[in-house]
Amino acid sequence: MNYDVIVIGSGPGGYVAAIRASQLGLKTAVVEKESLGGICLNWGCIPTKALLKSAQVFEYINHAADYGIKINTPGEVDFEAVVKRSRSVADGMSKGVQFLMKKNKIDVINGFGKLKAKGVIEVKGTDGAVKEYTAKNIILATGGRSRELPNLKQDNVKVIGYRQAMVLPKQPKSMVVVGSGAIGIEFAYFYNSIGTKVTVVEYLDNIVPLEDEEVSKGLARILKKQGIEIMTGSNVESVDTSGDLCKVNVKTASGNQVIEAEIVLSAVGISTNIEGIGLEEVGVKTEKGKVLVDDFYKTNIEGVYAIGDIVKGQALAHVASAEGIICVEKIAGHHPQPLDYNNIPGCTYCSPEVASVGYTEKAAKEAGYEVKVGKFPFSASGKASAAGVKDGFVKLVFDAKYGELLGAHMLGANVTEMIAEIVSARKLETTGHELIKTVHPHPTMSEAIMEAAAEAYGECIHL
Amino acid sequence: MNYDVIVIGSGPGGYVAAIRASQLGLKTAVVEKESLGGICLNWGCIPTKALLKSAQVFEYINHAADYGIKINTPGEVDFEAVVKRSRSVADGMSKGVQFLMKKNKIDVINGFGKLKAKGVIEVKGTDGAVKEYTAKNIILATGGRSRELPNLKQDNVKVIGYRQAMVLPKQPKSMVVVGSGAIGIEFAYFYNSIGTKVTVVEYLDNIVPLEDEEVSKGLARILKKQGIEIMTGSNVESVDTSGDLCKVNVKTASGNQVIEAEIVLSAVGISTNIEGIGLEEVGVKTEKGKVLVDDFYKTNIEGVYAIGDIVKGQALAHVASAEGIICVEKIAGHHPQPLDYNNIPGCTYCSPEVASVGYTEKAAKEAGYEVKVGKFPFSASGKASAAGVKDGFVKLVFDAKYGELLGAHMLGANVTEMIAEIVSARKLETTGHELIKTVHPHPTMSEAIMEAAAEAYGECIHL
Repeated sequence: MNYDVIVIGSGPGGYVAAIRASQLGLKTAVVEKESLGGICLNWGCIPTKALLKSAQVFEYINHAADYGIKINTPGEVDFEAVVKRSRSVADGMSKGVQFLMKKNKIDVINGFGKLKAKGVIEVKGTDGAVKEYTAKNIILATGGRSRELPNLKQDNVKVIGYRQAMVLPKQPKSMVVVGSGAIGIEFAYFYNSIGTKVTVVEYLDNIVPLEDEEVSKGLARILKKQGIEIMTGSNVESVDTSGDLCKVNVKTASGNQVIEAEIVLSAVGISTNIEGIGLEEVGVKTEKGKVLVDDFYKTNIEGVYAIGDIVKGQALAHVASAEGIICVEKIAGHHPQPLDYNNIPGCTYCSPEVASVGYTEKAAKEAGYEVKVGKFPFSASGKASAAGVKDGFVKLVFDAKYGELLGAHMLGANVTEMIAEIVSARKLETTGHELIKTVHPHPTMSEAIMEAAAEAYGECIHL
Repeated sequence: MNYDVIVIGSGPGGYVAAIRASQLGLKTAVVEKESLGGICLNWGCIPTKALLKSAQVFEYINHAADYGIKINTPGEVDFEAVVKRSRSVADGMSKGVQFLMKKNKIDVINGFGKLKAKGVIEVKGTDGAVKEYTAKNIILATGGRSRELPNLKQDNVKVIGYRQAMVLPKQPKSMVVVGSGAIGIEFAYFYNSIGTKVTVVEYLDNIVPLEDEEVSKGLARILKKQGIEIMTGSNVESVDTSGDLCKVNVKTASGNQVIEAEIVLSAVGISTNIEGIGLEEVGVKTEKGKVLVDDFYKTNIEGVYAIGDIVKGQALAHVASAEGIICVEKIAGHHPQPLDYNNIPGCTYCSPEVASVGYTEKAAKEAGYEVKVGKFPFSASGKASAAGVKDGFVKLVFDAKYGELLGAHMLGANVTEMIAEIVSARKLETTGHELIKTVHPHPTMSEAIMEAAAEAYGECIHL
């Protein structure tokens, strides 16, 4: 059967591209080897947020007295029920994608897809049978997987990746999390909240190392107070899994330390799924594990496109979706604008949350900008006081010359929602003064954005 | 002593105006008859949000099992502790304003201030002594109070206003809330959540009658499910407080009904505090209970200004603050833009929350616009599923011709924070397509804004 578009991979890049293609009148199919929705829906963004919500509710219960609510016996985490809820949320979302495929008349081809030639893919079904499909346009959206370090081999039982971390058979008493990006920190926060002894080992000098340094340091301070052990500038040299507990040999600035833990979670980034999908056979160019594409996700081979984790840019669900839409709109003859990779928000859903977009203060200075920085702490926010969430701040970085908002860096309750305003405002090329004069509702956490902008210009009211 | 600016009233209009005046180098004083921060900080926005947070925590406890958390005995509301927390949050904020006055070298004059002549006010202190002060510019920011209806006289014990409602000596078993604006609905939600039997009586056909009709109807459905009795198109004709329970005589479309309740809360709007402040004596013009001002809050009398609840525009804290800043900047010789009263967000902090800005669908049509409407329900949002908050939706109203975003209407968890993005985007004159192409972080509730915009243009992915 001939398609206009076949997408290999049904994650947030692939299924979104398929839906947009169908909206634009293109006959579309999507190939999936596992569950519709890919890692994001099934093993990433969505089920982790469900786990984190359970942790949040547990924390409210532990602090109920602070809000005037009496509980006579302490709350208990039913780990199995927490995991079950998370799985059921993920399953529901995956079924939702199934519904969307049907509604948009997109064929779902189950199996492992690979490029065979220009315009041709072959799919190996679960029964081992191989079938060929042809399409004018083939979009590769095969995503990523947990990266394995040579000295941190995953046995999926004691040394695990994010996938096992969300379906452990029982709650571990202790855990070492290696890597402190969003995935590492979210699991560290979750397990610590529900009573697991957690140690985070980070190779670089700061946790969440992509964030502005003030955010990294502020978050570290808070997580330590919550009981998480944090070792920065440290490196796991080996893990001995022969005993009941793993012995994790960590090299630190002050010498080696051995940490014992039931579980070691490797969260040191992702590897791209570009093996065995026919790139070499068809001659698709790659570099450093990424497929090379132009601004509209076309590879060097006519009719072959790639989006999501396997191409340049942030390996994030919302990036993959945006790329998928742009790719398909271009295929359909529209004139989409290339994606602005400098206006992509990044979020970490621990508590307090982390959200950011654009230049950090340091990066802006390195890029040659003279900067004006404004900061507003939630301790001065009325809403934060009323809600009992006074940790954190909003930091805005402006170009001193023209007032352009170069970046925003937030730590605090709800900031993963607040960052959208900044992304919108940056897209619309806001200046500092326009933000100051935007009337934010009172009392909200979002007022901190207006106040941080005002602080940069000496007009902050509440500091 | 001679001042550049004296502000009468230290609510969110007055104290903010005073701080901005001081920043601009003006010698400033503020007159307050009660607590710094006015109603908003002491008896409005802030303490109610503290109460609502307690209700939210109580609800989490009641639904803990849904999140995999076991509690062996049900949670109990310690009403006194809930109220105490709310008072302590308010007191903290008021002390914060005190600190800000000191830091900004603003003199605080305690007592009841009134205009005496152009450039002169007199203040009657708590000891009864009257003192005069002179200033080049006098800003009236005396705010509002709970409006009293003739057939609903407040005795402050059984028939009360918002002020008493947040410090009742004990939790009432039953309550009739008259009026279903933000104040009425927030208290109805709070008391119902903690176990009081609540009936809301609304004169108009819909609750939260200023909101888009879909929001009003959606919220009514949810509040009813939560157990609140709602009577719309109904009117309280009289209240008999002679017995143990109040007998509230309500006229409905189907005849009169008598409802019994311990407490009747009158929440039928506010009256402006314009009596006894010297307006008549000095000749300041008023109309329908409001002081007449120009775009920069100047009254008909040179050097006399008025801001906040006592002038035109929405009686909201953030409006008062914005007016205060504009008023003072103009006094200082700056060139502020007049406030755009059509881009003022309004919020109701029940759960789910309500937030809106700009034209409702109906108002836009009445204003002659051909509209394009986009709607996205949270039931289709991954974040909402993970967080267990699937009620509600985002509705956007666009001008079909030029794509201008005319209004936004939201019902759901966290929408009081999400509305800031819309206010910013409208200030920066966004179009629908710019919103669609703004990459919102996944998974967040804020994605619903992008999806609602996309829905208006036939590009929605997740519906």
